[in-house]
Amino acid sequence: MAESGEQRSGDPLVGLVMGSDSDWSVMREAGRTLTEFDVPYEVGVYSAHRTPQRMLDYARGAADRGIRVIIAGAGGAAHLPGMVASATVLPVIGVPVPLKHLDGMDSLLSIVQMPAGIPVATVSVGGAGNAGLLAVRTLAADSGELGSRLRTRMAEYQDGLENKVLDKHSALQERAEQD
Amino acid sequence: MAESGEQRSGDPLVGLVMGSDSDWSVMREAGRTLTEFDVPYEVGVYSAHRTPQRMLDYARGAADRGIRVIIAGAGGAAHLPGMVASATVLPVIGVPVPLKHLDGMDSLLSIVQMPAGIPVATVSVGGAGNAGLLAVRTLAADSGELGSRLRTRMAEYQDGLENKVLDKHSALQERAEQD
Amino acid sequence: MAESGEQRSGDPLVGLVMGSDSDWSVMREAGRTLTEFDVPYEVGVYSAHRTPQRMLDYARGAADRGIRVIIAGAGGAAHLPGMVASATVLPVIGVPVPLKHLDGMDSLLSIVQMPAGIPVATVSVGGAGNAGLLAVRTLAADSGELGSRLRTRMAEYQDGLENKVLDKHSALQERAEQD
Amino acid sequence: MAESGEQRSGDPLVGLVMGSDSDWSVMREAGRTLTEFDVPYEVGVYSAHRTPQRMLDYARGAADRGIRVIIAGAGGAAHLPGMVASATVLPVIGVPVPLKHLDGMDSLLSIVQMPAGIPVATVSVGGAGNAGLLAVRTLAADSGELGSRLRTRMAEYQDGLENKVLDKHSALQERAEQD
Amino acid sequence: MAESGEQRSGDPLVGLVMGSDSDWSVMREAGRTLTEFDVPYEVGVYSAHRTPQRMLDYARGAADRGIRVIIAGAGGAAHLPGMVASATVLPVIGVPVPLKHLDGMDSLLSIVQMPAGIPVATVSVGGAGNAGLLAVRTLAADSGELGSRLRTRMAEYQDGLENKVLDKHSALQERAEQD
Amino acid sequence: MAESGEQRSGDPLVGLVMGSDSDWSVMREAGRTLTEFDVPYEVGVYSAHRTPQRMLDYARGAADRGIRVIIAGAGGAAHLPGMVASATVLPVIGVPVPLKHLDGMDSLLSIVQMPAGIPVATVSVGGAGNAGLLAVRTLAADSGELGSRLRTRMAEYQDGLENKVLDKHSALQERAEQD
Amino acid sequence: MAESGEQRSGDPLVGLVMGSDSDWSVMREAGRTLTEFDVPYEVGVYSAHRTPQRMLDYARGAADRGIRVIIAGAGGAAHLPGMVASATVLPVIGVPVPLKHLDGMDSLLSIVQMPAGIPVATVSVGGAGNAGLLAVRTLAADSGELGSRLRTRMAEYQDGLENKVLDKHSALQERAEQD
Amino acid sequence: MAESGEQRSGDPLVGLVMGSDSDWSVMREAGRTLTEFDVPYEVGVYSAHRTPQRMLDYARGAADRGIRVIIAGAGGAAHLPGMVASATVLPVIGVPVPLKHLDGMDSLLSIVQMPAGIPVATVSVGGAGNAGLLAVRTLAADSGELGSRLRTRMAEYQDGLENKVLDKHSALQERAEQD
Repeated sequence: MAESGEQRSGDPLVGLVMGSDSDWSVMREAGRTLTEFDVPYEVGVYSAHRTPQRMLDYARGAADRGIRVIIAGAGGAAHLPGMVASATVLPVIGVPVPLKHLDGMDSLLSIVQMPAGIPVATVSVGGAGNAGLLAVRTLAADSGELGSRLRTRMAEYQDGLENKVLDKHSALQERAEQD
Repeated sequence: MAESGEQRSGDPLVGLVMGSDSDWSVMREAGRTLTEFDVPYEVGVYSAHRTPQRMLDYARGAADRGIRVIIAGAGGAAHLPGMVASATVLPVIGVPVPLKHLDGMDSLLSIVQMPAGIPVATVSVGGAGNAGLLAVRTLAADSGELGSRLRTRMAEYQDGLENKVLDKHSALQERAEQD
Repeated sequence: MAESGEQRSGDPLVGLVMGSDSDWSVMREAGRTLTEFDVPYEVGVYSAHRTPQRMLDYARGAADRGIRVIIAGAGGAAHLPGMVASATVLPVIGVPVPLKHLDGMDSLLSIVQMPAGIPVATVSVGGAGNAGLLAVRTLAADSGELGSRLRTRMAEYQDGLENKVLDKHSALQERAEQD
Repeated sequence: MAESGEQRSGDPLVGLVMGSDSDWSVMREAGRTLTEFDVPYEVGVYSAHRTPQRMLDYARGAADRGIRVIIAGAGGAAHLPGMVASATVLPVIGVPVPLKHLDGMDSLLSIVQMPAGIPVATVSVGGAGNAGLLAVRTLAADSGELGSRLRTRMAEYQDGLENKVLDKHSALQERAEQD
Repeated sequence: MAESGEQRSGDPLVGLVMGSDSDWSVMREAGRTLTEFDVPYEVGVYSAHRTPQRMLDYARGAADRGIRVIIAGAGGAAHLPGMVASATVLPVIGVPVPLKHLDGMDSLLSIVQMPAGIPVATVSVGGAGNAGLLAVRTLAADSGELGSRLRTRMAEYQDGLENKVLDKHSALQERAEQD
Repeated sequence: MAESGEQRSGDPLVGLVMGSDSDWSVMREAGRTLTEFDVPYEVGVYSAHRTPQRMLDYARGAADRGIRVIIAGAGGAAHLPGMVASATVLPVIGVPVPLKHLDGMDSLLSIVQMPAGIPVATVSVGGAGNAGLLAVRTLAADSGELGSRLRTRMAEYQDGLENKVLDKHSALQERAEQD
Repeated sequence: MAESGEQRSGDPLVGLVMGSDSDWSVMREAGRTLTEFDVPYEVGVYSAHRTPQRMLDYARGAADRGIRVIIAGAGGAAHLPGMVASATVLPVIGVPVPLKHLDGMDSLLSIVQMPAGIPVATVSVGGAGNAGLLAVRTLAADSGELGSRLRTRMAEYQDGLENKVLDKHSALQERAEQD
Repeated sequence: MAESGEQRSGDPLVGLVMGSDSDWSVMREAGRTLTEFDVPYEVGVYSAHRTPQRMLDYARGAADRGIRVIIAGAGGAAHLPGMVASATVLPVIGVPVPLKHLDGMDSLLSIVQMPAGIPVATVSVGGAGNAGLLAVRTLAADSGELGSRLRTRMAEYQDGLENKVLDKHSALQERAEQD
């Protein structure tokens, strides 16, 4: 794993994987968030069920290639996040992608209810943006310069959220008056 | 795969796998059922999350070793049946094992809601006995002597179920009278 | 039951039944899959509730007419798969068809939660394509030439799935770059 | 169907059926209620899945034998009430029997979500006593003497419920004071 | 209660009530069914929560006015069917009307889970047509001429359902061939 | 309604009602809480389904007798809180009492999902103690001396909760060390 | 807290808060209801997660600024109502706002299932209008002139609901005739 | 934040917090896991609802005191993990603690369904051990010596899991033979 203290414009720190490119409409929000925090990432389609060996191989090699967090999105009987977690020592973040039926409840339970020994850090149904933020927070826990930089950036981001709330507060009072 | 027409006392036709030996209290009913129909089977503990590679290797080799149906039981974020199905061309029967919380609903959805391309034949929560019967029916669809024998046996078994109902019918009428 | 070793262009091996022709929009995917694997099948509307006797008669006669797997789709209080299973020794695959309300959860539980003695091989809500694949896998367990042929075809099919994932992998990386 | 105006001490008016004599621990409450209202009934074990033909035959012959309401209890993928309803013109009351898992939710949905054309009058999970009362109310709708008698009896029963509430009201006030 | 043997073209036998006229889009199917069987009925808006006393008064007077079955539809915390049942000796059929959220699950549980003593004959979510059929079956249990006539009509209706299935069977086979 | 400024040792301000005295094991916690805040209350068994008229009469007369908040507990198809709310202008607090099946989910939905026009202030499943606290908060909103007194008491109560947390904090650290 | 006896055209009695101005489309119904009853209120955007300190400060200061009831709407892991309740002695009414997935069930459980000590008065999913009515009822419990006025107004409002039902009753009978 | 390269026997890297010391019976498994990996941690009782300000203050100060991951367990309307996450830049892991009713489903949804901007890394219902492992994996992502050490340790731990499965495999085969 590379030193996080250096500026790494290209070497990805986060692996962002999903079972199909059709999941990208949900998962791209994770990518946008990582870009917003200048965290380099790689994307890939790895299917637990259609390419089981290739998926395991990806997970197994990730740490050695410098990846430090993996975000995996899947829907239905969503096995990708858990299976990736089984083959790496890195933290794996699972995004329950909602399918046509059951509104993501199957995806959520298939990801979050992992057995003892192999955890998956699960976010909300369709919550790819939050998965990106959780990856940033994970890197923000780093003891080196990267952690320091990301803790500062995350604090600024949270200040930004607060400012948006204040703007919405003003906007609401105008709307409420006109009602 | 061996000819099913021969008498095979020992070579297993069914692989009965689970994530932990603690699942045996639920899964043994599958074994009993196979024994009742004189279908040889093998058992094993293969964990999708704790031994992913070994689990895939087992699934991949099963057909060549003469296994014709696999029964897999798992609970919670139950990935074993689906992952086994991803690495074999054989029919895979999934048994949702209920855990301490959520009463098996997570196990059920994690097994039954498989994505397009990789089916798992799912039975009821804790329904290992029915998984055994489904394996027998699958072999009863065989075009050879095995199929013929098992179709006859299954018809007898179903007659037996009917007879038990008639006995219960009589028993109920006595109980109801005494109430 | 006919020998599966012969080439049977017309005699159906799979019975594909449903409670109404309106279920065809969901169930046709099972037919397409069977056609893709050159497995002859028959279709029919048999309602557990509107034609109970006719439905039982169909199930009872299926094995003798050479049918080896039955796929049954139904929605709501979905009794067709279980009732068909009660009157045949063949493996029965149940497809939970989602209705206007409850998103298929009622269909799923009505099919999968069968009592001891009579199993139904249940697939995902609306998963008719996977039901077709499960029928193919069941026939692929055959000890004769049919089984051998279908095991090979299923392996090729799974290779095809893998190739599609590789294509999607490339496609995703282009899309992600453009975002 | 016999005249309801005559006193019929023995000929049953209600058929009380279930899939197993083990359901009697839940279903006996229906019997007790019918006895309390002096409504003769018959009991029987008819399994939709283990004795499908016998179950249909029972349902088909019920009206001609003088049965006027059928109560059917079943659990899990509970098909008995709906299948009985499919083979009779009589009103059928369904009792969802809770099984070991899912707390009766599967039983409830399997009974209540019947498709257009074949209704089942569903009561609460485990609500066999209420099924008995619903059978009595159904007979209380009769235009003859039976209906008149049962409407009077039901009104008295409801007065009795009211009196019990008044007793409980007094009892509660004593308990509350002592707390 | 009037003799059911006479021809009663106008006097309603069924009370069809709901909490709002907006429920009519769901509940009209009950009316159509009753009309199809020539069963006279009355309609009314009675809200358990907005007109509690008037609702109770309606329920209390229904039997004496010759009503023999009440159908009540309601959604959400659906109290109308149960409250009507509390104030009459007649059989009450409850229709869970689905609202904007929760897909009718709240309506279903609020209607079907009645406490011991006061049953409601619950049909499927949105199943107003089946509620009409259940009312017809209830009247078909009558010992007089009305019962006899409706049993015959219901048998014809069920024959009609069977014929429709046969037509759909043919239609499906054409559609399947063209696919 | 009496002036709240006077000291009223006996005249109840809160009506605490339930469908059966067996609910007292859950509901007594509401009584204890009211006693802790020196808020006089009355208890009673009023069943929506077994004594509908008496229940309505109670609700209608409550405000004139000086009652200012009503707490109503019920289980299953829990209609008591909503029906009481329909017949009073006072705030009604509903407590979902869990029954043997469905773990209180039916009780919760039957109480909270009230239609537009008639609200019920719903607390958690079995949350009778919180219902008592909500009644106290409601009275603490009073503009007179009662409100002032109860606001002070509630602030003290909340300080007490905080202190208990600090004690638990110390206790935990001891326990954790011994582990 | 000001005397409720005075006419207060401007000083708000109710605080109507939400996590985002996008919630206003749901929450405005609460505002309309308060306006209908001439109850002055203030609106604001306070996010439990994006502005935790500011949210706590708002809740803490509300009572001293004369606010007597707080209505808080939130969706998903909806923490706003409970967190506001933790920092005030006033009654807090929670509105579960439904989000894109899970149909408000997550919002409902996150609001209603509060732990012992801190109640939230929860209304139905999306039930902002009822939240407004519950706030009015809470103020109607006041011992002063405000309470008296609002009890009268609420009684008139309920009479209005009754009249609307009567109008709908007539409308329904016309519609039913034309059908 | 201290350099992770140094050996820190005492300074805690993980904050393990919960709403009550009664949660310790579930949460201690997190502590045991951290101890197994020689990761120092601190424990504390911080209640979102009973000590909101103190809880926010804890979260706000954690990063500066050297804490790098926070594990928070809570049940019911479980707001602690989300509120802690709102006041820190560190990764927060949420453990849904199951309460007496609803089997932890309320706890799970209250924790996992966080709104955009503030993620919580959610593990399974009652999954405190996995929360500990997730904290270890988070620290294993560190770019310094700590990360390197923990990646090695986690790989050994996973080897250990694999070995246990092999032992169970042998044990199962003995048990199965004796059955």
